[in-house]
Amino acid sequence: MTSQLHKKGEAWSARFSEPMSELVKRYTSSVFFDKRLAFVDIEGSLAHADMLAAQKIIGTDDLAMIQKGMKQIREEIERGEFEWQLDLEDVHLNIEARLTALIGDAGKRLHTGRSRNDQVATDIRLWLRGEIDRIGVLLGTLRGALLDLADQHAETILPGFTHLQVAQPVTFGHHLLAYFEMFSRDAERMLDVRKRVNRLPLGAAALAGTSYPIDRLRVATTLGFDGVCANSLDAVSDRDFAIEFTAAAALVMTHVSRLSEELVLWMSPRVGFIDLADRFCTGSSIMPQKKNPDVAELARGKTGRVNGHLVALLTLMKGQPLAYNKDNQEDKEPLFDTVDTVADTLRIFAEMVAGITVKADAMRAAALQGFATATDLADYLVKRGLAFRDAHEAVAHAVRICETRGIDLADLSLEQLRADLPSAAALLGDDVFGYLTLEGSVASRDHIGGTAPVRVRAAIAEARKALG
Amino acid sequence: MTSQLHKKGEAWSARFSEPMSELVKRYTSSVFFDKRLAFVDIEGSLAHADMLAAQKIIGTDDLAMIQKGMKQIREEIERGEFEWQLDLEDVHLNIEARLTALIGDAGKRLHTGRSRNDQVATDIRLWLRGEIDRIGVLLGTLRGALLDLADQHAETILPGFTHLQVAQPVTFGHHLLAYFEMFSRDAERMLDVRKRVNRLPLGAAALAGTSYPIDRLRVATTLGFDGVCANSLDAVSDRDFAIEFTAAAALVMTHVSRLSEELVLWMSPRVGFIDLADRFCTGSSIMPQKKNPDVAELARGKTGRVNGHLVALLTLMKGQPLAYNKDNQEDKEPLFDTVDTVADTLRIFAEMVAGITVKADAMRAAALQGFATATDLADYLVKRGLAFRDAHEAVAHAVRICETRGIDLADLSLEQLRADLPSAAALLGDDVFGYLTLEGSVASRDHIGGTAPVRVRAAIAEARKALG
Amino acid sequence: MTSQLHKKGEAWSARFSEPMSELVKRYTSSVFFDKRLAFVDIEGSLAHADMLAAQKIIGTDDLAMIQKGMKQIREEIERGEFEWQLDLEDVHLNIEARLTALIGDAGKRLHTGRSRNDQVATDIRLWLRGEIDRIGVLLGTLRGALLDLADQHAETILPGFTHLQVAQPVTFGHHLLAYFEMFSRDAERMLDVRKRVNRLPLGAAALAGTSYPIDRLRVATTLGFDGVCANSLDAVSDRDFAIEFTAAAALVMTHVSRLSEELVLWMSPRVGFIDLADRFCTGSSIMPQKKNPDVAELARGKTGRVNGHLVALLTLMKGQPLAYNKDNQEDKEPLFDTVDTVADTLRIFAEMVAGITVKADAMRAAALQGFATATDLADYLVKRGLAFRDAHEAVAHAVRICETRGIDLADLSLEQLRADLPSAAALLGDDVFGYLTLEGSVASRDHIGGTAPVRVRAAIAEARKALG
Amino acid sequence: MTSQLHKKGEAWSARFSEPMSELVKRYTSSVFFDKRLAFVDIEGSLAHADMLAAQKIIGTDDLAMIQKGMKQIREEIERGEFEWQLDLEDVHLNIEARLTALIGDAGKRLHTGRSRNDQVATDIRLWLRGEIDRIGVLLGTLRGALLDLADQHAETILPGFTHLQVAQPVTFGHHLLAYFEMFSRDAERMLDVRKRVNRLPLGAAALAGTSYPIDRLRVATTLGFDGVCANSLDAVSDRDFAIEFTAAAALVMTHVSRLSEELVLWMSPRVGFIDLADRFCTGSSIMPQKKNPDVAELARGKTGRVNGHLVALLTLMKGQPLAYNKDNQEDKEPLFDTVDTVADTLRIFAEMVAGITVKADAMRAAALQGFATATDLADYLVKRGLAFRDAHEAVAHAVRICETRGIDLADLSLEQLRADLPSAAALLGDDVFGYLTLEGSVASRDHIGGTAPVRVRAAIAEARKALG
Repeated sequence: MTSQLHKKGEAWSARFSEPMSELVKRYTSSVFFDKRLAFVDIEGSLAHADMLAAQKIIGTDDLAMIQKGMKQIREEIERGEFEWQLDLEDVHLNIEARLTALIGDAGKRLHTGRSRNDQVATDIRLWLRGEIDRIGVLLGTLRGALLDLADQHAETILPGFTHLQVAQPVTFGHHLLAYFEMFSRDAERMLDVRKRVNRLPLGAAALAGTSYPIDRLRVATTLGFDGVCANSLDAVSDRDFAIEFTAAAALVMTHVSRLSEELVLWMSPRVGFIDLADRFCTGSSIMPQKKNPDVAELARGKTGRVNGHLVALLTLMKGQPLAYNKDNQEDKEPLFDTVDTVADTLRIFAEMVAGITVKADAMRAAALQGFATATDLADYLVKRGLAFRDAHEAVAHAVRICETRGIDLADLSLEQLRADLPSAAALLGDDVFGYLTLEGSVASRDHIGGTAPVRVRAAIAEARKALG
Repeated sequence: MTSQLHKKGEAWSARFSEPMSELVKRYTSSVFFDKRLAFVDIEGSLAHADMLAAQKIIGTDDLAMIQKGMKQIREEIERGEFEWQLDLEDVHLNIEARLTALIGDAGKRLHTGRSRNDQVATDIRLWLRGEIDRIGVLLGTLRGALLDLADQHAETILPGFTHLQVAQPVTFGHHLLAYFEMFSRDAERMLDVRKRVNRLPLGAAALAGTSYPIDRLRVATTLGFDGVCANSLDAVSDRDFAIEFTAAAALVMTHVSRLSEELVLWMSPRVGFIDLADRFCTGSSIMPQKKNPDVAELARGKTGRVNGHLVALLTLMKGQPLAYNKDNQEDKEPLFDTVDTVADTLRIFAEMVAGITVKADAMRAAALQGFATATDLADYLVKRGLAFRDAHEAVAHAVRICETRGIDLADLSLEQLRADLPSAAALLGDDVFGYLTLEGSVASRDHIGGTAPVRVRAAIAEARKALG
Repeated sequence: MTSQLHKKGEAWSARFSEPMSELVKRYTSSVFFDKRLAFVDIEGSLAHADMLAAQKIIGTDDLAMIQKGMKQIREEIERGEFEWQLDLEDVHLNIEARLTALIGDAGKRLHTGRSRNDQVATDIRLWLRGEIDRIGVLLGTLRGALLDLADQHAETILPGFTHLQVAQPVTFGHHLLAYFEMFSRDAERMLDVRKRVNRLPLGAAALAGTSYPIDRLRVATTLGFDGVCANSLDAVSDRDFAIEFTAAAALVMTHVSRLSEELVLWMSPRVGFIDLADRFCTGSSIMPQKKNPDVAELARGKTGRVNGHLVALLTLMKGQPLAYNKDNQEDKEPLFDTVDTVADTLRIFAEMVAGITVKADAMRAAALQGFATATDLADYLVKRGLAFRDAHEAVAHAVRICETRGIDLADLSLEQLRADLPSAAALLGDDVFGYLTLEGSVASRDHIGGTAPVRVRAAIAEARKALG
Repeated sequence: MTSQLHKKGEAWSARFSEPMSELVKRYTSSVFFDKRLAFVDIEGSLAHADMLAAQKIIGTDDLAMIQKGMKQIREEIERGEFEWQLDLEDVHLNIEARLTALIGDAGKRLHTGRSRNDQVATDIRLWLRGEIDRIGVLLGTLRGALLDLADQHAETILPGFTHLQVAQPVTFGHHLLAYFEMFSRDAERMLDVRKRVNRLPLGAAALAGTSYPIDRLRVATTLGFDGVCANSLDAVSDRDFAIEFTAAAALVMTHVSRLSEELVLWMSPRVGFIDLADRFCTGSSIMPQKKNPDVAELARGKTGRVNGHLVALLTLMKGQPLAYNKDNQEDKEPLFDTVDTVADTLRIFAEMVAGITVKADAMRAAALQGFATATDLADYLVKRGLAFRDAHEAVAHAVRICETRGIDLADLSLEQLRADLPSAAALLGDDVFGYLTLEGSVASRDHIGGTAPVRVRAAIAEARKALG
């Protein structure tokens, strides 16, 4: 191998009459981004070598040499001493060339019965499996932070909005649990993706399998794969597992973007529901008074990045004939950047959520405006016999009158209320005011998934169990 | 309700001072595309009414009236006699208005304890669940067609390509099984999506739950949901299940696009591996000789459509604050069109694959060109002691010589072969020619996932079992 | 032609041995969406026939018959009496079949020297050119509405935000002019796209041109094209003009989405800067008090739709070999829907903007909070000799103190101010308070593009001139 | 500034009570990718300083100091000695801090009357303008290479394909000119984008303009801008110029993907129309005979990358309220990578196209198969009086017969031809065979845009003039 690889300065192999153009070398080289696969590449090679020896395709002395050589290479990489060479194209050839330089012919024999096509497919899967597990942990941390804050605010009332208009009072704990649910589904999805990532392509060789008596199940067991890819052509050419992962990641970021939008809104002086810790904010180079929720905004912007990577991968795969084509080299950068973006964002959000200061007074004040309990008044009338649609209409009428006067429903006396709801006057009693309070309203939504504090606490308890 | 809805010509409700602009009515109306939800809307309403009666929120007479009215509405729709009104905005209000016209106050009471927000979320999930099941069946039919064709061609040899260059001989059966694998993963993904679709949002009401003593689990059971959405704000506002479905659909279409690309290539006279039945092709308005594989091309083009819908949904959801916003009305058309595109495409492909005529001679002739067994020669040398990298280099050298002469490796005599592989001459024996045949090459790839006919047959048997 | 087209029930042409499958007919048919091209198809055919007659390729009697037949077909379509047939695949064959039914052989001769490939490319360009002009007018109307409102509020002050934090006071007129600028660039872009749309593909025939002595420049002149496509293969196969248009449309919708976001925010009771007319809002089926800015939200959601269409078209075109492939049929629906979405949205926004009620008091009150003039204080100090960075730091210090106390900078006495800015105390004089007023602040930004009312009025005058 | 920036280790400014979290610093820092703006940042700062001095906002001694300091900084960067600090967030603060360290207070005064918001917007536009010009040159080089090859092959005939089926003979020169046209439109688009990029945002300050008596037109002239952004809020917050550029770049890559698809097809042994120089190809690690067109495939894959960046930027901008939000920091990486991808790809394609070996014999052989001149036969009949649609049908019938027999139309004797076209027998004379030759066919398409060699040469001459 050494000789062949070193001759690349002259030509790719003896089949070629001229060396690769320098421009092409740089254009097609991937070593500066795929070197992050180095450790899984070594892990995969060791499992392959172990199988080759067990199947007597290489000798046990070869295996020992390979293990020794790989150990040294791993250490060189860890110490930052490994010399990555652009001329050697990618992480696989860089490591293979180094191995052959260290241990000679045994290194050349490592590539028996495999190709770069199945090798790279194996590496990506091994690496992505680890990252999925890491993202699972980070999702858990963020979900835990949301639960802790929800727990403190199971009874803190703020206006629930639809269309950014005041809708009905909800508790802040309940509101936060909505995000807990979203990130829980994201975690579920990651587990589903993992099943399809965790299958071994090695043994597919270039595209058709190999004529050596390999044992794919042994390699799968060694590397912790759940099974083997059942078709060699498919194994080396499809990247749907990467696309599926990126789609799941795009949903994580979409949920982050929604939370970010709310954090930015809540921090705005016009709303003023929360404060973010200074350490998560920045100022302005020109305006001395500014304190900006940069992290939330940047994360919201990064949603675009992951959506973009998803489109990149789908476009890449569209219309590709079997089996491997070089287009597929473009799978790595979008995938790597997606993983980095999601992991960094989740880590910082877990910390930022934990550092939120809740301004309960401002929340409450806001809930008292905007007729948040109008639905409760309609429900009150329904329970006294009015059809819902008629009750709705009667209250809408009263709201319009109150708005003109600049007051809220709860500000009315019973007489005024009766006057403003002529079609329902007879049904109104003194007890109506109990239904118009914020506490009465939230407490009444007392069923699975409802905003009543008792339900929020139950949901938190359930969630903590699920989180383990 | 009737009165309120009819007054919309005047104003939305008593809270409004002027009627909705005609332009706005058309812009915001969804009835002409969401009426396809009519039957699930009725199904959901009946389950809701059943629960309201069981919880004594409405009377059993109300329930009976609602059931009777809904039966009539269903029949009117089936007979095409239902009069859809733009003024009534969407499928839900159209049905509700008709119900109230038919049965009076009982119809008004149906809406007790729910909102359009949770109603529409329930409808979409019910509808999508059914479509996922239908797509599952269609994926099964296509997979079956692929298996049948693979079975007939488990021993038919064609050149396997990488980079559209001849790589190694494979069997056509093996090649088709690659697509079987892709569509099998697609079916798996659909099942995973189904889990997250099949949760009941009803009971979330507008956003906070309701003050009526509803029984969400009863409704879930009636409608066949696996469980209920655990948070009301999340239940009415997130659409990640629709995005996840569309992402899975985009992968189905991506796999279709790859198969299409190959069908078009194989049909091209330059390749000539297959013929598609005339009934799947069209001619040209100007060129009398043309027979075009239109279906495959159109399907390849439709990949863009589904990728686009995925982007539409992700963009739509980005940065949306809780809870429901009108942006979400835009979830339906992309979702509906995605389902239609995938279902129509799968159905037509299952038929088209069954109608493929394989030109085995052309495949074989192509496999005999392009040094398809060069890897086998290298492997032969390795088994006789050469390191793989050195064998690779020796064969590359011989290929280059043969190419200059315009002949194949198998055309050489043993002496010539020895002359062209000087570094390996001593290792070459008469038995080498057995390794250079197409049959020898494919038969040697005899391991799980390999292209050996015996393995292809085993894989087909396995696949038939999985398909049930 | 009639005979051939009618025989399609049997087979595509004499070259085919079986009829097209019903499934295929439905899958590949486009008549139900491309019939909107009917009038431009007729216009293109008439120009083609005129040229054929002028070049003596057909007789003048043929031309007269074709003109007569087309007149009748146009009227049939206008009256809704034209019978569109799925079996006839698309708008072009439907019209051609009807023409031949009406006028016999002359109708058959119309297709001389052209193909559906160049015919459809011509139709789309003709149609799109008209839509671009229509969109240009609608953009003008919206820009005019923004100018009118800006004119009324050239001196109305609200807080300018960055990061949704109060930054500096601006006038509402100035704020609206930012959108005027965006939509002006959109209009510019539409004109640039138009140049590339307005080139004639007709004459390219199927892909290579035709052997008839056609006169393409005559057709171009008749149809008002600026020139002819210079290469026949390119003319029938590329759709970059449609992609470029859709990208420009995506920017229109992106700008609409930004305006929508602000309208929704400004309408929220937490902000309360504006009110939208009731006729542009809707209520809630459950919450009687709601008035929702549905149009703005829906438009924001529709941004996703157009972004999605752009992705669909780019995906469609990726990797297509020359010349025409059936994939291209998928260009129409995304393009049609993009045009509809943009045109409907612009029309409704022009009306909605004209119906905005500005709550100037709320704007002013908001501008008085949040230290909006802190930058002015820093600038004051700089003009008295402090380096900007040091002034920034001194004011930041004072802001932090004020925030703790819950007061604003303008609330301080000169002594307090000096105490809170110890490093700048000597520079502070009584005149400082003039710089801390909202009016002083906006008036001081008196340069091209600045927010000073005098500049806003000048910009409006300039804009009115540009708008014509 | 130095002091303030150095204190960031403690807190952002005096307004903050705690330092930025390390995690946040890394998450929000951009210096490691935006340092490529260093030279345009310096250029912009020098133009700003020049204006400040001319307006007497700073002294001429300050200006001299700033010029001297910037000269040194530029040299430090060129020599790779500039120490980029993560703590200083971005390229702007890094340079400003260094300037202040070098020249003291004069450095602090440079920031007078501007903000990072308008500074960064100016830098990106300056940088992008230069890159657009560079891409224009690269497009020119590729167009020139296409012209040169077209010139050599103005008479080389190959089959023109539609649907990858043989359609009509075309010349290879004509085929290459189709790509010339595509890349010419791309160059036009780049010029249109440039107009909108080349407007100066500086002077907008943070969002509202500045209270200093700045002269924006002077800065615009110094920096070569065509004009100034007319609204300060728009100037700092919109990025539509970047999106428009990326959309234009996506079309460049789409055209590259189409050419790539054809290069890969033409290189495939099944087609064999061309050979790419060895220096643009790679081999296989396992298959010794492989020579793969990697560059074309990789470029095709990179289309996805640029489409993805376009989606990223559109997503980023969707729904952003005015004025600047931190989301916008995410504009840079997609834009930078788009520029790199397009520039690298164009450069390598210009070289690769120049190195194409055309296999004219294989092209000709392919054109002789597949009834490429069937349209010519139909046209022959039309010229003798048959209606086109009838001629089409007659020839289709003959093609079907020939196909069954495995021969071509040109292989028939006149008698046989008459027998196979019974409906047109009387019209057929001996001269028909002249119309069935490849040369006759291409020569007859003799009009603007047609494939006749004389027209191809004229188009090349025209194109060379346009290219200048």
